[in-house]
Amino acid sequence: MAGQFAEKLPQAGEELLEKITGANPSMLRSLMSSLSSGELAQLLEQSLPAQRAVLWNLLDEDAAAEVLHSLNTEVSSEILHDLQPDQIAFLLSSTSDDDLADILQSLPKTLTQAVLNQMDEHDRSRSERALSYDANTAGGLMTTELITVGPDHLLKTVADQARRHIATLPENLDSLLVVGRDNQLLGSLPLIKLALLDPSLTVREVMETDSLTPLPHTLSSAEVAERFQLNHWVSAPVIDEDGHLVGRITVDDIVELVRDQAESALLNMASVKDHEDTFAPTLKVMRLRAFWLGINLLTALLGSSVIKLFEETIAQVIALAVLTPLIASMAGVAGIQTSTIVVRALSLNQLNRQNRWWLLRREFYVGFGNGLIWAVVMAVLASAWFNDTTIGAVIALSILISLSCAKSIGVLLPLALKRLGSDPALSTGVILTTFTDVIGFLSFLGLAAWFYG
Amino acid sequence: MAGQFAEKLPQAGEELLEKITGANPSMLRSLMSSLSSGELAQLLEQSLPAQRAVLWNLLDEDAAAEVLHSLNTEVSSEILHDLQPDQIAFLLSSTSDDDLADILQSLPKTLTQAVLNQMDEHDRSRSERALSYDANTAGGLMTTELITVGPDHLLKTVADQARRHIATLPENLDSLLVVGRDNQLLGSLPLIKLALLDPSLTVREVMETDSLTPLPHTLSSAEVAERFQLNHWVSAPVIDEDGHLVGRITVDDIVELVRDQAESALLNMASVKDHEDTFAPTLKVMRLRAFWLGINLLTALLGSSVIKLFEETIAQVIALAVLTPLIASMAGVAGIQTSTIVVRALSLNQLNRQNRWWLLRREFYVGFGNGLIWAVVMAVLASAWFNDTTIGAVIALSILISLSCAKSIGVLLPLALKRLGSDPALSTGVILTTFTDVIGFLSFLGLAAWFYG
Repeated sequence: MAGQFAEKLPQAGEELLEKITGANPSMLRSLMSSLSSGELAQLLEQSLPAQRAVLWNLLDEDAAAEVLHSLNTEVSSEILHDLQPDQIAFLLSSTSDDDLADILQSLPKTLTQAVLNQMDEHDRSRSERALSYDANTAGGLMTTELITVGPDHLLKTVADQARRHIATLPENLDSLLVVGRDNQLLGSLPLIKLALLDPSLTVREVMETDSLTPLPHTLSSAEVAERFQLNHWVSAPVIDEDGHLVGRITVDDIVELVRDQAESALLNMASVKDHEDTFAPTLKVMRLRAFWLGINLLTALLGSSVIKLFEETIAQVIALAVLTPLIASMAGVAGIQTSTIVVRALSLNQLNRQNRWWLLRREFYVGFGNGLIWAVVMAVLASAWFNDTTIGAVIALSILISLSCAKSIGVLLPLALKRLGSDPALSTGVILTTFTDVIGFLSFLGLAAWFYG
Repeated sequence: MAGQFAEKLPQAGEELLEKITGANPSMLRSLMSSLSSGELAQLLEQSLPAQRAVLWNLLDEDAAAEVLHSLNTEVSSEILHDLQPDQIAFLLSSTSDDDLADILQSLPKTLTQAVLNQMDEHDRSRSERALSYDANTAGGLMTTELITVGPDHLLKTVADQARRHIATLPENLDSLLVVGRDNQLLGSLPLIKLALLDPSLTVREVMETDSLTPLPHTLSSAEVAERFQLNHWVSAPVIDEDGHLVGRITVDDIVELVRDQAESALLNMASVKDHEDTFAPTLKVMRLRAFWLGINLLTALLGSSVIKLFEETIAQVIALAVLTPLIASMAGVAGIQTSTIVVRALSLNQLNRQNRWWLLRREFYVGFGNGLIWAVVMAVLASAWFNDTTIGAVIALSILISLSCAKSIGVLLPLALKRLGSDPALSTGVILTTFTDVIGFLSFLGLAAWFYG
């Protein structure tokens, strides 16, 4: 049983992908029917642009709507982009509110309007409500499909009512929300209590109020994720400014969110647009990459201009040309190590007024300490290699200066970018390298000009 | 209500941290008593080494055990490291099995043995069982504290039994597991069914079997996380080779796991040891950083040796020294963009035999296409800057070659490292830069030697 299950997904996926070229549609459809919507979504995410269209067209309309729910946003927007507005409107009619907003926001503005025009009254108002919340807040994460009970009902009545809807209740439901008039949130009724306590008690008598910590709809998604992790929640209610219940967030959306946040940071630090689809078409990727390569070219030219200032010194001591890139490389790695730690600490909300100065001081010491070690090593190596103790002294001093500065800038730069309202992960990489290059070149060649001048 | 709650944690934390220097212990203790164990854990994670010891000592023993559960492993092992084996054994006696193994594994080997010696019989056997599972598998993630029922009980009997233990049942429990003789896993009983269905039915009549997908204890944690995300689970049972129930994994551990995985990749790509505590002491950080800086120095020396081969050409055309670091920088960024996408795709298990060759071809085209664009730009700029069209031709060709190669290596290197059983995120960064540097230097200076020779 265990082994059989363990290998099911990858095999089915590989098998499908191998058979897809030239297979007849009915065979493919039967293979696909053995997969869950989550597995189908994964299959679509792994397939190449041409395959993706074939697979998508084999799904019937109900299955397509379910798969859409499990797809990551970059792939779903790729797929929807090729559909007609009425097809999109149809697919979205069976999508939950939180997905609805995500998907509509990922479409080009003109297409969004066309899709809204194709919707019936109910879906349109649902969409407009969903779009009214900022995607990066609790309001953007929540679903508005809620199961609520009144405080004065008997547990028996609640159970009777729920029994009638048992087929449609989510299986991993752990509690019902208790609301008063005007949808005022009063408490929560854990299912375990509904199952076990005396049926003649009222909801008010048994509901939890202490442990109920509703999230304001304006709370940032990063904060929402943090609360879920701190409190080990499975779900949490969302309220508006006046304490009215407006939605509910469940932990499966948090798992996705946490992965997305961490992924964005990873991709952004490497000068890649976040949420890039792994199998995006060549031209699209070319365009995305060209931008950051261009920015990098500009900053590298700045570095080259610094070197050009010292052409005469280099002409006199060619060894300098041999070692200049080494200084830039060491300073770059030292800076990136530090700024990555700081970007992570910022995303975990770990920094405050006090500990950030401690961190700056620590990283300076770390840079200075490491600078000393590798300065001594390089002084010996360079002196021996070029049979010139002056170049040993120059490179040693330059490593000490570059590493201390790189580590300090590695702390200060993400903090400054955050203060300026920019995403520290996005811009830190390229800007940091500009700084570390310039400092490396200036210190190394500047000292050389002085020592040899 | 909303606003008040939204700002509670950061304020309380900042306030505490500011008052901690010189505050009297009783005031601190009363401030801390207003925080939940999750919030206290966050506070300890944010505090500096000296503060951390003070705060920790103010916790009473019961609170300390709870906080330990919420702390991330790097901070908890820092704290435990300073305690006596009997204190650690006491703290671990109230820790759940999955934390137990994590914490014991994070301690130095000799300390682990000393702690095991201080434990009572029950805790020792619990620890030994927990340690027998690989930390990176379902067995390492699971807790063995299970709530099970027999298949032939009436729902009424189950409810009666559960009622007696209501105070100790986890509040976010969504289902009970059904086991036969020998602990053979038979199905699950969603609480919603226990609450709503006829109490005179037997467990066997209502239990879920189709939707029950137990995880083999040997399944890798990455696979476990993937399954939870695909299926939107709140919890899942873990079984051994013979289908016996051995434990249960809950979604809150998955949230942590997903963040950890993504974070490790981010840190490893930047040559930082994963799980480094943000506020680790200076000397420890200096040691950790020194290692990767040393490796980088070695690879940078390799790059310098390549440059040294062309000393004569550089002496003849000093402009080459000005532009050499620019080539390395462009090739490095191009390579990192690609390898980051590939490392992410590997961690999401998106790559198979077919699509990896497609990806290689696409990235080569992207590199070639981008190479063409920036080659033309640099040909014009360099020719004008140095008033020398030959250097324009050399840098253009070199950019085209370097970018195409860098993108291709960006795909091949993580795949090769994975094939060799190494963590692609950990070693890709430094090795990739070695390749891109060498290719950049060789193509640029090699072409120059030929054109000017």
